[in-house]
Amino acid sequence: MNIPKIIRAALTDGECELVLKNAKVVNVFTGEIIDGDIAITDGVIVGVGKYRGKKEIDICGKYVAPGFINSHVHVESSMATPEVYAMEELRQGTTTIITDPHEIANVGGMTALSEILSAASRVPINYYVMLPSCVPSTPFEHSGASLNVRQLSYFKNDPNVLGLGEMMNSVGVIACDKEIVAKLDEFSDMVIDGHDPMATGKKLNAYISAGVHTDHESISYDEAVEKLRAGLAVLVREGSATKNLEAIMKGIIKNGTDTTRLAFCTDDKHLAEIRSEGTIRHNVELSVKLGLDPVKAVQIATINAARIYGLKRIGAIACGYFADLVVLEDLENFRILDVYKDGIRLQDIPQPERYEYSRSLISPIYFSELSEDCLVIPEKEKYSVIGVVDKQIVTQKLDFSADDLKKHISDGRINKIAVIERHNATGNIGKGYIMGYGKIHGAIASTVSHDSHNIVVVGDNDADMIYACKELKRIGGGYVIVSDGKTVGELSLPLGGLMSLKSAEEVITEIDTVIKKAYELGVNKNIDPFITLSFMALPVIPELRITDCGVFDVTRFEFVR
Amino acid sequence: MNIPKIIRAALTDGECELVLKNAKVVNVFTGEIIDGDIAITDGVIVGVGKYRGKKEIDICGKYVAPGFINSHVHVESSMATPEVYAMEELRQGTTTIITDPHEIANVGGMTALSEILSAASRVPINYYVMLPSCVPSTPFEHSGASLNVRQLSYFKNDPNVLGLGEMMNSVGVIACDKEIVAKLDEFSDMVIDGHDPMATGKKLNAYISAGVHTDHESISYDEAVEKLRAGLAVLVREGSATKNLEAIMKGIIKNGTDTTRLAFCTDDKHLAEIRSEGTIRHNVELSVKLGLDPVKAVQIATINAARIYGLKRIGAIACGYFADLVVLEDLENFRILDVYKDGIRLQDIPQPERYEYSRSLISPIYFSELSEDCLVIPEKEKYSVIGVVDKQIVTQKLDFSADDLKKHISDGRINKIAVIERHNATGNIGKGYIMGYGKIHGAIASTVSHDSHNIVVVGDNDADMIYACKELKRIGGGYVIVSDGKTVGELSLPLGGLMSLKSAEEVITEIDTVIKKAYELGVNKNIDPFITLSFMALPVIPELRITDCGVFDVTRFEFVR
Repeated sequence: MNIPKIIRAALTDGECELVLKNAKVVNVFTGEIIDGDIAITDGVIVGVGKYRGKKEIDICGKYVAPGFINSHVHVESSMATPEVYAMEELRQGTTTIITDPHEIANVGGMTALSEILSAASRVPINYYVMLPSCVPSTPFEHSGASLNVRQLSYFKNDPNVLGLGEMMNSVGVIACDKEIVAKLDEFSDMVIDGHDPMATGKKLNAYISAGVHTDHESISYDEAVEKLRAGLAVLVREGSATKNLEAIMKGIIKNGTDTTRLAFCTDDKHLAEIRSEGTIRHNVELSVKLGLDPVKAVQIATINAARIYGLKRIGAIACGYFADLVVLEDLENFRILDVYKDGIRLQDIPQPERYEYSRSLISPIYFSELSEDCLVIPEKEKYSVIGVVDKQIVTQKLDFSADDLKKHISDGRINKIAVIERHNATGNIGKGYIMGYGKIHGAIASTVSHDSHNIVVVGDNDADMIYACKELKRIGGGYVIVSDGKTVGELSLPLGGLMSLKSAEEVITEIDTVIKKAYELGVNKNIDPFITLSFMALPVIPELRITDCGVFDVTRFEFVR
Repeated sequence: MNIPKIIRAALTDGECELVLKNAKVVNVFTGEIIDGDIAITDGVIVGVGKYRGKKEIDICGKYVAPGFINSHVHVESSMATPEVYAMEELRQGTTTIITDPHEIANVGGMTALSEILSAASRVPINYYVMLPSCVPSTPFEHSGASLNVRQLSYFKNDPNVLGLGEMMNSVGVIACDKEIVAKLDEFSDMVIDGHDPMATGKKLNAYISAGVHTDHESISYDEAVEKLRAGLAVLVREGSATKNLEAIMKGIIKNGTDTTRLAFCTDDKHLAEIRSEGTIRHNVELSVKLGLDPVKAVQIATINAARIYGLKRIGAIACGYFADLVVLEDLENFRILDVYKDGIRLQDIPQPERYEYSRSLISPIYFSELSEDCLVIPEKEKYSVIGVVDKQIVTQKLDFSADDLKKHISDGRINKIAVIERHNATGNIGKGYIMGYGKIHGAIASTVSHDSHNIVVVGDNDADMIYACKELKRIGGGYVIVSDGKTVGELSLPLGGLMSLKSAEEVITEIDTVIKKAYELGVNKNIDPFITLSFMALPVIPELRITDCGVFDVTRFEFVR
């Protein structure tokens, strides 16, 4: 920052590089809307008032707010690379994102983290990283990597690192697990994100007292306000799968609860949805439609998040703050007319160059030769079947006799499901049955399967399932749909088997196509074919899951025999 | 912090070291008052709710708020040492102070700073230090030390240092003075305090854009709100000499201005006043009496200041926060019933041991031999006289002919005033005349004279003035009152010539006595004999001042010939 240049620009009319004339400025500090010109030099706001500049852009009385902050997001869930994702957020008025790259870290460990941080430093938005705290997420599966406290500590001084990512293992925290305590201790001078769904009372108190600062898992006002009272900043989430905003904000508005400890986030949101409705812009719009004061909504979307994460010179339109700005049609629909990042207008910001990711992260699909009978499940008297629940990511544990199982397999209501370890060719294959996925004729396989991201495959016959897995290797990871021995749909996600290397437009089109193909194959229309599948392997959400080690009963905390 | 111990205490009823039972807890995060027990272990709050503990104290339904934060204070102005001052604040519910030791730094430079930081680490409150940015405050005088950017940078990593102290040289900032810009640059990653009275418009914008974060000089709502809008956090001051709270808070309340960027401070407040009314407690009480919501007042006094200065785990009663608490009779008069610091009750906190300050800081009074005629002022045709204004620290420039001057000297309305360099025995003596100090019979001398703290002496005859200066050397600095060649009053301030080494009670009694003596000598009852005198040497406040280099016209920025 060139201080003398900034001082002269603020002081002398006509010295500014850029002046946005005739704006209605949302002042998050006083809670006012103020008419004025915004003077910018060296990427910094040097004044709001009457200014002339070397270049002037007439805002024509439209509203200007600080650039939005997405306080918690997993970029991998968009299936776009960081550089593609960043531009997509930017177009929607988000100038700062706080990310947790724990998906790619489960695949690529230290290499993945260093690569993401390297990419983060090159994109045209503020791309902050919380270091993944739970890799792998449980000991009941095999991921591509694990990250211990010493490994995480190497990244502490990276300027884009703000702290420790969501501590999902709340059971481990409360049990004073040694490695977890060591991580909390190591990062006690930075921000530590939480993840503690439905926690309450003394367990919640213990979890927070251990050093956790935020939580984005509240699904009701009561949950949110208990967490606020106890000391957590509450990140109000509105993502693709999880939509919590209405329940929380309705209560906040109704009870007049102080909003200074709220921020907005998406957690996981698909590119197509971001393209159509934005991220934080959407949270703001929804909140205002529910009755929240628009300036309060903007505060939540900007300065609040900046305070919670200790971000300096971000989140306000004020002297000395970075000129991260969003121009809005109005404060009702929050339609975005323009965006500025560090004083540069969106149209003048080039799409960042494709970052060359480490070869080891490209198409990392390593599984043992699959024999013809590798998916055969030994006969038993009784079977526990994973029951898919429409529009939910929780599952049910369904018990069937051998006869009933056979009956439902033949009528197509039960499919086989398998998880094949794909990081170290261990030969591990977990096998089981699933009900409610749909009467499919063929197989669907994916390398996206939370959080270890092994191959998850579902089908009505072993041959198509095995072929789908082999096809996944061919396309370098992603999604594959197979029917009668032929690939009828595919989406290539070579970066870690999670992200496409293509443009946003291409990714969106390809996702639409492959989802359509999946429904044509017979997938239940009340679920997302791939997202639902990807969560079948996450052994922390009740009731029944499957990992590369077998079918896992989350409630009993043990594998099904 | 022992994380496992804290987790177990939060989780398990009866495990806590201390539980404050039946409190009405002021929750600064939600803006609520919540009934509950406060559970404390290892100095940390581990939960609010229903708790049993190894030790329990019944709060009997009284209010408990977070310990107050004094966001800007010069401890030297109390005339007590840091360890005495800290205890005085603590008794009044302040558990954190943010200080700027620029008075003692003007006397003792690097040694003084290191000594204050050393003392700060030993007192039983959070004693943060902003490094003095303007030592000396102007080039028109000789202080005991100067501090350049390189010297200040050595202290950056001290855990008690939060940033750069009030940048009083706003003229230098706007003029892009090289050394000032270097200081702003060096501390751009920390908090930089401002001091820019009556600044407005583009000059204010330039000052803030240079990197300044706070200001405590607002004297009206309009001034405060312009500063808030432009990006400054406003520290609302209620000190001994400067009382700005009513004017600012009335406007805040009337206009419903967002209060999140306000904090409370005292700047300069005497020990006796602290003893009788407290510091931040008094600001809170006054604000509520003016009509501010009590919870908002507590937020301003606690979490707001913590956010502005980036203090972690301070300013709230919440899990993981330090157990800095104040028990209040009610939320009207804010009478303090008890105080806890890091979970330890006030009555159990021992007075900190006297810190052994470096010898070079004790009685640093070094001036040349004073000859009989050293105060003689050459005859001129016209004289510019410093005009004291009742109850103000501004002065007037009064012009008199030689005859009129003589007349008023003989009728006692005009006295002689001199500033004698006392740090390096340069022999510098500034001499002039003063009107409005009172018809005194004798002389009053002080080593407290902002900001260079040379000797300032006023009197109706040279002999008593010279004798008073010599007496100051004898008592090691402080205040001396002389009449007819005899010392009739004195206050010894040997630490830097600014602070007493005695207890609070002794200091308060001695100050009362010496002030009484000064009025008996004839000092104008509408001024404070010593504080008014101490500001006569501060060449940054209009209109006429005196330094060891002579009488200085602040408006014209030049010495009077």
